[in-house]
Amino acid sequence: MPELRKDPIVGRWVIISKERGKRPSDFCVERTASRGGFCPFCPGNEHTTPPEVMAYGRDGGRPDGPGWTLRVTPNKFPALVIEGNLDKQGEGLYDKMNGIGAHEVIIESPQHNDTLASISVKKFAEVLQSYRDRLIDLSRDTRFKYILVFKNFGEKAGASLEHTHSQLIALPVVPELVVEELNGAREYFRYKERCVFCDIVRQELMQGSRVVTENPHFVAVTPYAPRSPFETWILPKRHVTSYVDMWPDEYWSLAQLFSETMKRLDLALCGCSYNFVLHTGPLRDRELDYYHWHFEIMPKLTLIAGFEWGSGFFINPTPPEDAAKYLREVQL
Amino acid sequence: MPELRKDPIVGRWVIISKERGKRPSDFCVERTASRGGFCPFCPGNEHTTPPEVMAYGRDGGRPDGPGWTLRVTPNKFPALVIEGNLDKQGEGLYDKMNGIGAHEVIIESPQHNDTLASISVKKFAEVLQSYRDRLIDLSRDTRFKYILVFKNFGEKAGASLEHTHSQLIALPVVPELVVEELNGAREYFRYKERCVFCDIVRQELMQGSRVVTENPHFVAVTPYAPRSPFETWILPKRHVTSYVDMWPDEYWSLAQLFSETMKRLDLALCGCSYNFVLHTGPLRDRELDYYHWHFEIMPKLTLIAGFEWGSGFFINPTPPEDAAKYLREVQL
Repeated sequence: MPELRKDPIVGRWVIISKERGKRPSDFCVERTASRGGFCPFCPGNEHTTPPEVMAYGRDGGRPDGPGWTLRVTPNKFPALVIEGNLDKQGEGLYDKMNGIGAHEVIIESPQHNDTLASISVKKFAEVLQSYRDRLIDLSRDTRFKYILVFKNFGEKAGASLEHTHSQLIALPVVPELVVEELNGAREYFRYKERCVFCDIVRQELMQGSRVVTENPHFVAVTPYAPRSPFETWILPKRHVTSYVDMWPDEYWSLAQLFSETMKRLDLALCGCSYNFVLHTGPLRDRELDYYHWHFEIMPKLTLIAGFEWGSGFFINPTPPEDAAKYLREVQL
Repeated sequence: MPELRKDPIVGRWVIISKERGKRPSDFCVERTASRGGFCPFCPGNEHTTPPEVMAYGRDGGRPDGPGWTLRVTPNKFPALVIEGNLDKQGEGLYDKMNGIGAHEVIIESPQHNDTLASISVKKFAEVLQSYRDRLIDLSRDTRFKYILVFKNFGEKAGASLEHTHSQLIALPVVPELVVEELNGAREYFRYKERCVFCDIVRQELMQGSRVVTENPHFVAVTPYAPRSPFETWILPKRHVTSYVDMWPDEYWSLAQLFSETMKRLDLALCGCSYNFVLHTGPLRDRELDYYHWHFEIMPKLTLIAGFEWGSGFFINPTPPEDAAKYLREVQL
């Protein structure tokens, strides 16, 4: 019999359809060949992106010149623009505001064909550090309430460019899904006086069946009520609200665990497309008893169809216990 | 400058990125050729589906025999199963219940290649009538709290079979997105003592810029804060909570307007994939001052990427005023 499972943070229900019981090989498709053509993110083409806002590894060289190991530029086709004032207006019963925000691209490596599954732990740590640096820098702009760091890998996940990159969007409002997490976590705390994420980490480590991998500071788990097959979360074991407030050695530890997780997903699912997002506390609430930053990784293996659109329910053919087992068994 | 718009019912924000200003032709792709092969929904193959629960047009013939014009059967691969009891259980901090429900397929026509854009108004009215009949029949099962009628058309929308069909899933809980609509509409009513959907219909008819088409009983509009380009809603002008509580002549009027809307979308977007859902009141709340049934049609023109997954925000490159204008200008 299928099982309905409820996400303990936001209360979202998921249908785990064990009977369909899909294995990683059921999802495997050919790795897509490189699309080729001109790449604006490759070294030598720095002039084709908007002027960079940050770069690592360039030893005293000029901005937008060669020698960088990681480079951040505004998105050439931004969803939101940085110039202007927030201007809230009504239109009859409707509400709107100017599309103020920032939209940046983090070019993770000069190597076009690098992926998060192929790069070294050191390189991965550099990417994680860049998220922190951009969060801290952009949080100075008081028009922004939230910054969402995310990555689209592969065509199915919405990546329009192949060269390895992440993105961030700074927003003038806290986005709905983060508000739902904050509200759900606050409710839980009010009742239990404990952080729901801390409780999840504790129960997952005790049960073990949904643990993909762990190290002294972090754990990667398939969540109890995953929206998609092989959805994987990475959480710090220690209670920290904001991603920017980790200790220096924790970034290195995170790089080790995140890198291993990406390798396991890549091998189990044949390099399939994925999205990930960083959920951290709102910019002006860096220390909350009830909120705990984490990454959510979503392999793109199923389609969002009418039922999901209309209900907010998800149908998942792979129980997370099975997914975690497959991922643990991958030979690295 | 892009614009942030807020949905007045659920409070969801959408980024309308006018600069990207996509026209229907930017989305047009080749109509996919028929996939061919064996079709379990074609006449003569009735024995390959689970036994039918309802059929129209068969004049005294035997069930699962020939002669039908519309046929409803349980889904062969159901997301939820009808046998058993609801059994709620905890698992540490997590909650689950048995996957009790119904999952049915409405085979809209015996003609394999019919589409909702090609069939007659009379045929369309038969499809709309079947939704009503199944909603009424299934609502007798007190284990169910909600029934979601939906349609996936085309591969990108998740249709695994080509033969024209809709689906419904009866659920033991009211789904999250409907709860959000109910809560938002209740809040609005508390403040204004008016139904937000009635206010939307009134403002849209007055402004006109987002109206696709209207008739004495219904209106088709592109919503103010659409999640996807060319998203279109169909609403009754009269306040009715439940789809099953329309007057008989209103189903005919709905068929006319819905049929015209599907033809306009089909021609403007070259037969693109789409989903639609019917949002009606919960089964045991058929008369609410604040809730108003409607259809939401979502053409599948953009991908859900990391930003949308992580934020619940949507980025839409086509302002709804432009979309409505294109749809009005289609020559039928």
